[in-house]
Amino acid sequence: MKNLLEIYARKRRDISAIEKELEESVNNDHSLLRETSIHLLKAGGKRIRPVFVLLSGEFGNYELQTMKHVAVPLELIHMASLVHDDVIDDANTRRGQLTVRSKWDNRIAMFTGDYIFARALGVITQIPDPRVHQIMSKAIVEMSIGEMEQIRFFFHSEQSIRDYLLRIRRKTALLIAISCQLGAMASGAPDWLSTKLYNFGYNVGMAFQIRDDILDLTGTEKQIGKPPGSDVKQGNITLPIILCLQDPAIKPMILTELDRIHKLDGQTDVSRFLEMIRGSAGIKEADRLSQVYIDKAISSLDKLPNNQAKKDLIEIAHFIGNRSY
Amino acid sequence: MKNLLEIYARKRRDISAIEKELEESVNNDHSLLRETSIHLLKAGGKRIRPVFVLLSGEFGNYELQTMKHVAVPLELIHMASLVHDDVIDDANTRRGQLTVRSKWDNRIAMFTGDYIFARALGVITQIPDPRVHQIMSKAIVEMSIGEMEQIRFFFHSEQSIRDYLLRIRRKTALLIAISCQLGAMASGAPDWLSTKLYNFGYNVGMAFQIRDDILDLTGTEKQIGKPPGSDVKQGNITLPIILCLQDPAIKPMILTELDRIHKLDGQTDVSRFLEMIRGSAGIKEADRLSQVYIDKAISSLDKLPNNQAKKDLIEIAHFIGNRSY
Repeated sequence: MKNLLEIYARKRRDISAIEKELEESVNNDHSLLRETSIHLLKAGGKRIRPVFVLLSGEFGNYELQTMKHVAVPLELIHMASLVHDDVIDDANTRRGQLTVRSKWDNRIAMFTGDYIFARALGVITQIPDPRVHQIMSKAIVEMSIGEMEQIRFFFHSEQSIRDYLLRIRRKTALLIAISCQLGAMASGAPDWLSTKLYNFGYNVGMAFQIRDDILDLTGTEKQIGKPPGSDVKQGNITLPIILCLQDPAIKPMILTELDRIHKLDGQTDVSRFLEMIRGSAGIKEADRLSQVYIDKAISSLDKLPNNQAKKDLIEIAHFIGNRSY
Repeated sequence: MKNLLEIYARKRRDISAIEKELEESVNNDHSLLRETSIHLLKAGGKRIRPVFVLLSGEFGNYELQTMKHVAVPLELIHMASLVHDDVIDDANTRRGQLTVRSKWDNRIAMFTGDYIFARALGVITQIPDPRVHQIMSKAIVEMSIGEMEQIRFFFHSEQSIRDYLLRIRRKTALLIAISCQLGAMASGAPDWLSTKLYNFGYNVGMAFQIRDDILDLTGTEKQIGKPPGSDVKQGNITLPIILCLQDPAIKPMILTELDRIHKLDGQTDVSRFLEMIRGSAGIKEADRLSQVYIDKAISSLDKLPNNQAKKDLIEIAHFIGNRSY
């Protein structure tokens, strides 16, 4: 299987152009905001949203300038939500880098998020199509509801798989879905096509987050850029854990451990908990569900023309379904 | 002098319509977000931004439906910035009510702000004129830079009057300025007129914030809905204090007090500090500057038609220049 860099190679020049635009878009005369924003940008990320915009744009009349105006705000919105997420997660590292809240403080992280978000809006105003604005603003509302839902479900061991899926839909899948949809729409592709791409992105997004949640439980710090078990320390009960809680044989042990971690406010070693989960069927079952989403994503592309963009999207989907970082 | 309610009386029905729209715009199925948002709305406020939108709209072709789409997002943006502000200020009360961060917690306040802001964007997408979007997004960027500037200047006793004015320009005056400008623009008033109204709003906004900062030092808790001296406790050095620091006779005393408050992280009685400031010329001088802005605001309206809206704007300006709450 190709890695992301190989899949991205064909679009390297356009991805660099977007990277440059991202930097320019957060530039300003205020030294602290410039520092925090650039710190965030340089911490990297997979740039999945911009890449999906670019590839989806190839199903219409591809123009880099137009693609930029869609890709840049989507990535900025994603970044802004990450900084705010790090505040509630008390996260110290992300992608192996210090988070803004840890290098500076929570208040500075909050305002950095506000600023990056404001910049995203500035870029969006350059898009003439009002449908794009409506779709983006709806997704942003859902994301912000998802942020709050997250808090409500912290250490909530009675939640259902449905609760979890609804949460990651808002938190992750919607923004990836509209990245594909809007890339196609802005390039003038027909509606049926941008809807198919929306479905592709939605399903890839669901698989992406499930995979992320599995990795938090099974990965090494080197692989995932943060200590494993970070999710459960802050009370985030993810799919593999919910699945384990459905197994009466291990449910009591898991509950006891969750209770202990909760009482210690996450300030404790979670290696025993991780061992229990790793040895269970929950991980395998979650992985299977992630593969179901990947398969659904790929079949969403069935009726699409067999161009290079479609091949690339399929490769990225496979990568996401199997990634270990 | 009339009070605000008397001045607002003529527009009471339209203000109620906006109030209803504000409530509907933050409504949702998520109980916690609904609670925090409605708590914020019910805590009230002077609704100066919506009222300025409505009055400015009377210089063009006034249509309530259009006015709503401008007034509601401006008030929501203002509210969102207040919740985030309360987080950095560690504020417990505002307008005599518990703040979201105090009734719930900082994380919930952060996400409530994000949510209300997202809702504002949703309403904005209903406005067809792209100039409105551009003007709003620029103001939002400036506001977010202003939020961060605020932190940088906490307990910074060497700041100039210019630093202060630039800060309140971003923090307060710009949003009030564009409330007037966009009300006129959305009603189809000619550009020269919306520019004049921008100037009116800008100057009123500067006076408004100076007056606010004076009241924090001179008002009673009953008048201002929060304990007096709240600004200095969190390190916010406002105009009267900067002016006092320019007087060599009292500068050393003020510095010593500021230093003490800083060291105790604001967890101290500030009545001695307030006495020192109240007895100085700084308050009077700040008040004089606020009056200069009010005068400038009113002369911005010189060339405008002498309709009832103009009379109301002038009355509001006078009210703001003299208000004690």
